[in-house]
Amino acid sequence: MTQNIKLTLAYDGRAYLGWQKTGMGPSIEATLQSVIEQILQHPAPLQAASRTDAGVHAQGQVVNFITPRPPADLHRFQLSLNSLLPKDIVVLLAEIMPLSFHPTLHCVGKEYRYFICIGPTQLPQHRFYAWHVYDHLDLSLIRHALPFLVGEHNFAAFCNVKKNAHYTDYVRTIQTLEFKELDEQRLCFRICGNHFLYKMVRNLVGTLIDIGRGKIALEQLASILHSHSRPQAGVTAPAHGLFLHQVFY
Amino acid sequence: MTQNIKLTLAYDGRAYLGWQKTGMGPSIEATLQSVIEQILQHPAPLQAASRTDAGVHAQGQVVNFITPRPPADLHRFQLSLNSLLPKDIVVLLAEIMPLSFHPTLHCVGKEYRYFICIGPTQLPQHRFYAWHVYDHLDLSLIRHALPFLVGEHNFAAFCNVKKNAHYTDYVRTIQTLEFKELDEQRLCFRICGNHFLYKMVRNLVGTLIDIGRGKIALEQLASILHSHSRPQAGVTAPAHGLFLHQVFY
Repeated sequence: MTQNIKLTLAYDGRAYLGWQKTGMGPSIEATLQSVIEQILQHPAPLQAASRTDAGVHAQGQVVNFITPRPPADLHRFQLSLNSLLPKDIVVLLAEIMPLSFHPTLHCVGKEYRYFICIGPTQLPQHRFYAWHVYDHLDLSLIRHALPFLVGEHNFAAFCNVKKNAHYTDYVRTIQTLEFKELDEQRLCFRICGNHFLYKMVRNLVGTLIDIGRGKIALEQLASILHSHSRPQAGVTAPAHGLFLHQVFY
Repeated sequence: MTQNIKLTLAYDGRAYLGWQKTGMGPSIEATLQSVIEQILQHPAPLQAASRTDAGVHAQGQVVNFITPRPPADLHRFQLSLNSLLPKDIVVLLAEIMPLSFHPTLHCVGKEYRYFICIGPTQLPQHRFYAWHVYDHLDLSLIRHALPFLVGEHNFAAFCNVKKNAHYTDYVRTIQTLEFKELDEQRLCFRICGNHFLYKMVRNLVGTLIDIGRGKIALEQLASILHSHSRPQAGVTAPAHGLFLHQVFY
């Protein structure tokens, strides 16, 4: 009896060239698929809600595969996966879904979180999981910038060029864009939207930080957005501060 | 003009056999001292508020050294240290102190924090900085246990045997012992005291966790404390969940 199995994943993206298989080096997709195939003994190609980039982390990635020989006990299957997977990939949940379920097509939104350490030094335990911004940040400037980016916009100015990625249009909707001061030295941005362009989250965060440190004036933001021109916007925030937090269905 | 320089340190203890120099492998003390000596070009033996064990982290360790050739600019000295140190050791602050200042003798208290992940899985980004406890924990049992351990007691039951460590007495004072639920999956214990016995913090946390998971009955705790016998208490919590958080003067 064929089953559609959904896995919710967390991973530390440091050791991988991203979700997607590549001939260039390790990927989360290839690592997970080979462990599933080792257990179930049949080919199990995966589909994922988000093809996270090299070095990006996840704590709520959603993937699925179809199996003609479903595991008898889903909880034991999850335990087997976790015992065979390297410690930087963890299956948080395994569920049986209707055969029609597709993690990308049925996704109605995704939440990303981006962590930043501010100040002259960064605590070592954050160095792999947060971007260290040395410069003084004027958080009130960032707070004022956020509403300009929420809603439906053409986000071409925040989209990097990618080989083989051809967008028919650059209009996307950001439902939520906010940040929280976790403590005196750490910020967390929360970004929810329907679909994202290539490196869009990191370009939004980088631009907001450039506003906070005075490299980009708050008044420029509307014209950057309307320019549809990537060079107008700010830096691309580094991969290691970004987490795919949750996928909504 | 001789100066007494105090450094406040954070480190990721994973790669080290602890603070103290040893012939067995890398130590934070040897690593830091060699970088200081490289910059100042004279021997600079260090004293530290706490000799943290192998694998234990810090975000507020305090150390000092005496220099007959003080750096002209303390802020630049700190920057030099951080650029020469490996990324898992960070100097948070460099200060000039009176010559009489001694980080151990003048310490009036220390705060340790111990992080725990609960539940069937642990997020990968916490795997080096929190103990993963799979078993269900009854937090109300732990909450009831805390007051028994606060105050002045003979803590011999929570002291591991150590070669070359001979205590004349085992009476110590715990000023604060509490925990906070950081989120659904993470606990943080906060422990403040004047002096601590060998592995005392980790034995206290391990025993509290054993109470939470029902391996030790709450009613036994007073008799464990009064037994002065290490085997009566619970497990030693692993090093990688422990942070020396702050030293008080």
